[in-house]
Amino acid sequence: MKKIINNPDDFVEESIKGLVNSYPEIYKFSSETNKVLTRYTQASNKVGLVSGGGSGHLPLFTGYIGIGLLDSCAIGNVFASPSVDEISTAIKSANSGKGVLCIYGNYGGDVMNFDMASEMLEMEDIKVESIVVADDVASASNEEKGERRGVTGMLYVFKTTGAIAETGADFDDVKRIALKTNENIRTMGIALTPTILPQAAKPTFEIGDDEMEIGMGIHGEPGIRRGKLKSADEITEELSEKLLSDISLSKGDRVSILVNSLGATPHEELFIVANKFNNILNDNGIINSKSYVGRYATSMEMAGMSISILKLDDELEKLLLEKANCPFWY
Amino acid sequence: MKKIINNPDDFVEESIKGLVNSYPEIYKFSSETNKVLTRYTQASNKVGLVSGGGSGHLPLFTGYIGIGLLDSCAIGNVFASPSVDEISTAIKSANSGKGVLCIYGNYGGDVMNFDMASEMLEMEDIKVESIVVADDVASASNEEKGERRGVTGMLYVFKTTGAIAETGADFDDVKRIALKTNENIRTMGIALTPTILPQAAKPTFEIGDDEMEIGMGIHGEPGIRRGKLKSADEITEELSEKLLSDISLSKGDRVSILVNSLGATPHEELFIVANKFNNILNDNGIINSKSYVGRYATSMEMAGMSISILKLDDELEKLLLEKANCPFWY
Repeated sequence: MKKIINNPDDFVEESIKGLVNSYPEIYKFSSETNKVLTRYTQASNKVGLVSGGGSGHLPLFTGYIGIGLLDSCAIGNVFASPSVDEISTAIKSANSGKGVLCIYGNYGGDVMNFDMASEMLEMEDIKVESIVVADDVASASNEEKGERRGVTGMLYVFKTTGAIAETGADFDDVKRIALKTNENIRTMGIALTPTILPQAAKPTFEIGDDEMEIGMGIHGEPGIRRGKLKSADEITEELSEKLLSDISLSKGDRVSILVNSLGATPHEELFIVANKFNNILNDNGIINSKSYVGRYATSMEMAGMSISILKLDDELEKLLLEKANCPFWY
Repeated sequence: MKKIINNPDDFVEESIKGLVNSYPEIYKFSSETNKVLTRYTQASNKVGLVSGGGSGHLPLFTGYIGIGLLDSCAIGNVFASPSVDEISTAIKSANSGKGVLCIYGNYGGDVMNFDMASEMLEMEDIKVESIVVADDVASASNEEKGERRGVTGMLYVFKTTGAIAETGADFDDVKRIALKTNENIRTMGIALTPTILPQAAKPTFEIGDDEMEIGMGIHGEPGIRRGKLKSADEITEELSEKLLSDISLSKGDRVSILVNSLGATPHEELFIVANKFNNILNDNGIINSKSYVGRYATSMEMAGMSISILKLDDELEKLLLEKANCPFWY
C-alpha cells in the first residue's frame, strides 16, 4: 500500500485538520466535535444547508462548505456514515432560524442516520428536511429512479441550492430548487482500479489489468458490466447513450456537464473524454452552457471517471453560474 | 497500461481540444496552429506573458492562461519542448506592444527553443525577455541555484507576474516582480510510482513497491536518494528541513505554501502533509498567509507530491491574492 499517511487510524482526522489549517478563511471545526465542519463565519437569516457522508471522497463532502454552497458537514470514517450525534451537531450549527435542508447521497446508513437526527431535532422545534440525491443511472432503472445511488451529480444540488439559499429565500423555495436540480441530474462512470482503504490496507475489489467496470459505484459497488478496457471515445459513447436517453434531451436543450476523476485519472484523460462528450452534445444540437472538469468526488486513488449532466432552465442556469467561495469550485 | 485514451498519437491534441471546448470562455486556439493556446480575448496595452513546455503536466502549462495569469502558451508533445515556431507564434499572439516576458522551467530544450524564438522576434522589433524558473532544491545546491530544475514553484511566478502585468505596468516592473518571485520560491517533492508515456506505453522509471524517491523530478529525473516509504510526517519533516534552510526563513516571516499532487496522490494525503507542514511553520513562528492544495503541476498519473514555498513581502502578497480568472486557480 503506497500511501503518504501516518497511523491509518488518524487518516480522517489529520486530513480534515489539514483542510482547515490550509483554508482557515473558509472552514472551522464545530466547537463540539472534530467530526463536524462549519463555515468560518456562520451565516445568518438563511436556510441552512447540511451534507455529510463517509470520508475518502474529497473534495466531497466537506470541501463544499463555503459562501454560496453548504453551511456545515458531518464527517464519517472512510466510506462509513457519520453518526446521528455528528449529524445533529451539523444541523444545529447550520440553523439560523429559517430551517435546515440536508442534502446527501442515497446510501442506507446515511439515510437512516440523517432521518434519526432530523426527528430528534424536530422535537427541539428545528425545521429539518432532507433531499436524498440519486443520480447514478447505472444503479437502478429510470422507473426506480429513487433507488439510485447518489454520486457526483450531488455537486449540482449543492451549487444551485446553495445559491438560492444565500439570497435569503424561504424554506419552500430552497427546497423546490433542490428537488428540481435532483430531478435533472444524471451520472454514470467507469472504474479501472480499486482504491485501498487505509485501515484495512486492502483493495476494495479486484479487477484485471486490461479490464474496466462500467457503472461501478464510488465505493466499488457492482456496475452494469465488466469488460475489456475500451478507447476513450467508445467509453464516452457508451456513457453518453445511457445518460442522454435517461434524461430525454432534445435539440436546443441546455445542459452543464461535469467530467470527474475518481482520483488517479489525470486531467489529460478527463479532457479527452470531455472533448468527445462535447462533440456528441454538439452533434445532437444540445448546448453545453458550463463545463466542470477535474476531481470533484473521488474514491481516494481509484482510477476511473464519471460524466454528470444537469439539464438547465433559466432559473437553474442562473443559480449555477452565481459565484461561490470555495477552494474546490470554479 | 490503463489509460482512458484513444490513439496515443492523438493524446495531446485531443486533451487540448477538450480543454478549449470545456472552457471556451477562457481559452482559444491560435489561428495559426493547434499547438498554441491564447486567451479567448486578447488583452491590450499590457506586457504579454508566455509560457510553454512539454505536455503531460496539466494544469501546467496551458491551463494557467487567463486574466491575471498568462496570455499564451506553446504546447509540446508529452515531456518534449515546443518548437521554435510554436514559441514564436505564442510570443507574437501575446504581444500588444509593451513587450513580452517568457516564463518557463529550466530544461535544456525549452531554454534553447525559447532563446531562438526570442532572437528571431527581436529582429522583428518585438521586445522579448525570459525568466527561467529554477525552484527544485533537490536538483542543485544553493550555490548553483541557477542550475536547478523548474517545477511547481513556477505557478507563483505566473501568478504574481500575471497580476502586475494586468495593471498595465511597464516591462521593467513586470520583469522585476518575476525575478523577485523566482528568487523567493523553493520546491521539493517525492515520487512513489512512475507515470506511463502514452506513446511509449512504458513506465518512465522502476521503483520498488515499498520505496519512495526523495527529490525526484517531474519527468522522473533522479532525486537525492531512494529509500523505504516513510510516514507522511517523516516525509514532511525531511522536505521542510531542506526547504526552510535553503530559503533561510526566520520567525515572523510570511509565506505561501503549495502542496501539489503529482497526479494520483489524493486530496486526503495532500491534506495530511499540509497539516504537518502548517504545524512545522507554526512551531517556527512562520506565518502562512495562503495555502494552495491540489493538482497544480502533474506528471499525469504519477503518485507523489511536492511542497512549494514562496517567501512573501507586502508587494508579493498583494499580487498573489489578486483575483485571477482561470479554472485551475483558487
